Amino acid sequence: MLEKRQEGEAASQEIRTDLALEMRERFADDNVEVKGVVLEEEFREEGKLRISTVIIRDKQGAEAMKKPEGTYITVEAAELFSGGEAAQRLAGMEIGRQLKRLCGEKKIRRLLVAGLGNREVTPDSLGPLVIDHLLITRHLVREYGEGFLRRQLNRELDTEVELSAVAPGVMAQTGMEALEILKGIVRETKPDLVLVVDALAARSVERLNTTVQLTDTGICPGAGIGNNRRAINKESLGCPVIALGVPTVVDAVTIVMDSMEMLLKTQGYTGHEIGVFLSGIETLRSVDTMFVTPKSIDEEIRDMGRTISEAVNYCFFEI
Amino acid sequence: MLEKRQEGEAASQEIRTDLALEMRERFADDNVEVKGVVLEEEFREEGKLRISTVIIRDKQGAEAMKKPEGTYITVEAAELFSGGEAAQRLAGMEIGRQLKRLCGEKKIRRLLVAGLGNREVTPDSLGPLVIDHLLITRHLVREYGEGFLRRQLNRELDTEVELSAVAPGVMAQTGMEALEILKGIVRETKPDLVLVVDALAARSVERLNTTVQLTDTGICPGAGIGNNRRAINKESLGCPVIALGVPTVVDAVTIVMDSMEMLLKTQGYTGHEIGVFLSGIETLRSVDTMFVTPKSIDEEIRDMGRTISEAVNYCFFEI
Amino acid sequence: MLEKRQEGEAASQEIRTDLALEMRERFADDNVEVKGVVLEEEFREEGKLRISTVIIRDKQGAEAMKKPEGTYITVEAAELFSGGEAAQRLAGMEIGRQLKRLCGEKKIRRLLVAGLGNREVTPDSLGPLVIDHLLITRHLVREYGEGFLRRQLNRELDTEVELSAVAPGVMAQTGMEALEILKGIVRETKPDLVLVVDALAARSVERLNTTVQLTDTGICPGAGIGNNRRAINKESLGCPVIALGVPTVVDAVTIVMDSMEMLLKTQGYTGHEIGVFLSGIETLRSVDTMFVTPKSIDEEIRDMGRTISEAVNYCFFEI
Amino acid sequence: MLEKRQEGEAASQEIRTDLALEMRERFADDNVEVKGVVLEEEFREEGKLRISTVIIRDKQGAEAMKKPEGTYITVEAAELFSGGEAAQRLAGMEIGRQLKRLCGEKKIRRLLVAGLGNREVTPDSLGPLVIDHLLITRHLVREYGEGFLRRQLNRELDTEVELSAVAPGVMAQTGMEALEILKGIVRETKPDLVLVVDALAARSVERLNTTVQLTDTGICPGAGIGNNRRAINKESLGCPVIALGVPTVVDAVTIVMDSMEMLLKTQGYTGHEIGVFLSGIETLRSVDTMFVTPKSIDEEIRDMGRTISEAVNYCFFEI
Repeated sequence: MLEKRQEGEAASQEIRTDLALEMRERFADDNVEVKGVVLEEEFREEGKLRISTVIIRDKQGAEAMKKPEGTYITVEAAELFSGGEAAQRLAGMEIGRQLKRLCGEKKIRRLLVAGLGNREVTPDSLGPLVIDHLLITRHLVREYGEGFLRRQLNRELDTEVELSAVAPGVMAQTGMEALEILKGIVRETKPDLVLVVDALAARSVERLNTTVQLTDTGICPGAGIGNNRRAINKESLGCPVIALGVPTVVDAVTIVMDSMEMLLKTQGYTGHEIGVFLSGIETLRSVDTMFVTPKSIDEEIRDMGRTISEAVNYCFFEI
Repeated sequence: MLEKRQEGEAASQEIRTDLALEMRERFADDNVEVKGVVLEEEFREEGKLRISTVIIRDKQGAEAMKKPEGTYITVEAAELFSGGEAAQRLAGMEIGRQLKRLCGEKKIRRLLVAGLGNREVTPDSLGPLVIDHLLITRHLVREYGEGFLRRQLNRELDTEVELSAVAPGVMAQTGMEALEILKGIVRETKPDLVLVVDALAARSVERLNTTVQLTDTGICPGAGIGNNRRAINKESLGCPVIALGVPTVVDAVTIVMDSMEMLLKTQGYTGHEIGVFLSGIETLRSVDTMFVTPKSIDEEIRDMGRTISEAVNYCFFEI
Repeated sequence: MLEKRQEGEAASQEIRTDLALEMRERFADDNVEVKGVVLEEEFREEGKLRISTVIIRDKQGAEAMKKPEGTYITVEAAELFSGGEAAQRLAGMEIGRQLKRLCGEKKIRRLLVAGLGNREVTPDSLGPLVIDHLLITRHLVREYGEGFLRRQLNRELDTEVELSAVAPGVMAQTGMEALEILKGIVRETKPDLVLVVDALAARSVERLNTTVQLTDTGICPGAGIGNNRRAINKESLGCPVIALGVPTVVDAVTIVMDSMEMLLKTQGYTGHEIGVFLSGIETLRSVDTMFVTPKSIDEEIRDMGRTISEAVNYCFFEI
Repeated sequence: MLEKRQEGEAASQEIRTDLALEMRERFADDNVEVKGVVLEEEFREEGKLRISTVIIRDKQGAEAMKKPEGTYITVEAAELFSGGEAAQRLAGMEIGRQLKRLCGEKKIRRLLVAGLGNREVTPDSLGPLVIDHLLITRHLVREYGEGFLRRQLNRELDTEVELSAVAPGVMAQTGMEALEILKGIVRETKPDLVLVVDALAARSVERLNTTVQLTDTGICPGAGIGNNRRAINKESLGCPVIALGVPTVVDAVTIVMDSMEMLLKTQGYTGHEIGVFLSGIETLRSVDTMFVTPKSIDEEIRDMGRTISEAVNYCFFEI
């Protein structure tokens, strides 16, 4: 839900990003070792996929990273969602495999997928679009009973997953927090796992539409930037939560700030001097309601939605 | 939710309609007096609006009408949603007034509007479209407190209504019954009233897009035709429910059956003979998955959505 | 363009259909031999595809069939557009093959595809949807020259087809006949062939979304039913025209009339008596602005658009 | 057509903007008098509308401004398209009046409106959206003859304008330049005037969705930046052309460059030094396919389309 997180952001000049990896890389740039944080990397030649796993192990790591303890997996590729059908199939399968890895040993029988975001705002419509392509099975399994999916899909399935899905909309559309709607549905339908899909804001344009982040910590919008929207996680929902996100926008302010900072660093300015410069720029105020997004976002977001649906279908139904 | 109700309907030749008024008129044709059922009619010259109120008073009435006890109000006009801006404003205000009448003395402070149906199926998209145009206030009233709406709307409001809204989708999209989703949200947000908006199936094409039905009995899809989809009403939701519906389709089977019956009656055939004829027609099987809808439905449904939103806004915010 | 053809149709009770095959079958029912008309049929086990070719050879045939001389090919299957990905691929390839057959020996170098119909009216949006998925090459071939497509597609192509495409809209949207717009574009860009794609009206519901008709006679809306919309064909456009159409609606009047007629015939009534009955039915007037369409049309029309695009891409680019 | 103009722009650091006013203001900043260029300004208290007229009088002015000779009118307001219904009505009427002023004495009887841009790319969909709301009259006036509009609109009209409209799509969709399609249609239907509506790229974010530019010079995409897309004007179309444009995006590169330049100027750097800094920034390459757009663009573009339609309807039909 892009709108929600962006309120009041212009004022702050701290490092802000929804991606744990970006946060980790920031430290890497400064050659700082981060205690309590583990980073693993893997590269798959087929599909040119880079898989990074950031594990925040303890409180110290969480504080440094300004993110809750847990596992954060990113799957990246330059053409993750734009490399044609075969490439997208590969990407979908890899995302599905990482999703399975995050699920761990738990046997998921009842899965609720929540597609967050606003269907009417193009770069924020990822969640609702993913919902459109899922294999919805809960009502069928409940009506036709055990064995139905195996017969339908003609496959040796481990479990007959009852998949349900909902696009709860954003607060401006519903007057309710997504958390409230999901809490009600969870209490009513008692899923074993909630998978939350959402569009994210990234820090750098290179990440846009090229990165998927999966985490077992849920979604914690605005943590550390003073935004008190409540987190959607195991604690608040009362059931395990995995969050899957794709960065689709960069704040215009962020991109301008970053470019300037880079320029000033090259010129040998100190951090303090840079801060003074940046804070003085009046013009940025108007940029506050702007975002930067790829020119082809309308088309790409649809492909993204389809690929992530396939990842979910692959993970839970082996199709 | 048009899809749900239509399963298995072809087999039955009973009178089936979502409109209490159509049911009542059926008896009127046969000059039968219906005990336990009261019918009142009113005509407004301005806007050429016909307002009919059917009250089902007791069990006997409910059995005869095959509908639960309660009040059913219809607002009708030949150009209810297609008479231009001024006419639609009139229609919206009248629907709003009837909605207020149904609410009665209860002071509504927390209202949840549920837009049922499938946004992706044109004649079934009424509910979601209505949601798009409502004045959503719950999050604002809760954030900015008492008096916020009065200041914002610059009006002497009786209550500061906290309006929230949701489009729960249909079972094929979510794997859950709308009832399950709404139950969860109701438990979580505790509204004083749930207003359910839905597209209906009518019995005659003259009703299409020209009639609105409001009822305090909730929505009872498939009652009496063996469809066991659970009702959305005070009993099932645990909070008062008003349902607002507009017929947007007629089953193709219904329209053919009706036309034939009329023809055969004119020719003096008996009810039994007619039944025999009708049951013999093989070709109708393929019609089962078809519906009849106005050629201009794509455009009309949008106007309808806007007018009904205005009715709700008028009823609760006097705008 | 469904709207245009339907004006004034209710008055006439002649046999009206956009499909030559339906016209031909009508005679077949009556065991009448039609001079000047040849019918060939073929069945492909793979994909369960029935391919029928009606050739209207001379003036006598044209008069009997109420259609211009030329070749009419239909490709039919119960699940032509709804049998899943593999089935649709097969269907697309077969339609592509038949399209190639109609093109004959002529070497097409410059192809203009015109997607007729109204994008905003679901069952009439086929033409515009097909356009969305075509491989548009004209600007690329002209910019990057001979050999570009071979390199891009990595294929031994016979010709480097310059494909251009346009969705001219309907008269209510543009104030112009599609013919006027196409004439201008043809004069300006001089294509070797115009392929016109359009949604059609069928006579029987079994045809809906299960049949594709291809013809080298162009499109002749309303011919024989007094509708003077001008034909889009070789004569009017000044360049060869192939029309590809899929029936997506049946007029509500047609379906009622047909069902009744069938009933009355079974009862032994004469044609004259039947005519008298039918003409007397007042109620049908209101049905005049209604159409019958499958409940799943919103979804099916998208699949249809994609499959027909693939057929065109397969025919001209062997992909 | 936003896509087309943006190719190859990143390389150049010249001042580039579709708005004559922005170009003029640039000189104003430098206190340079521009020969051959006249600037007039007007302010309307009602609606807070600022109307600026830039007239490029001769070759010298054209060279300085890098725009063809002619009149450029901008209508600006902070809430031009977002101030609610009444404000938008005022804005529409003012734009309509300025459009009338540009038309001058010529009596327009046949008007063709061309909505350029890509309906599927949100900030580029302005042209097609405007088309959707116009009063299309050409086919009606031609069918029902002189006096039809006066009767229909119940108004003393000066002329019965035959308004036709087309959304020709962008080259990636059609394989043809908009100019080619329009030339064909103009030749076929012989309008007295072509009104071209398009989304523009601005230089500063303050202009986004707050400015309308009207000009009698047509549209000259990429002039001066080496983009050889052909102009749509009187010369190329063979009939007078008025272009109406609204800036909806700023190139991400532009916004970063501008912010940096401003910063460096404040620091006292020379133009040469600034140029060296800017050219060195590698990271901007990836920004090349990005644009900056308001967060609410999906909603705003629809309001914009409606307001501009109203302006056109007001100008030509006095409604």
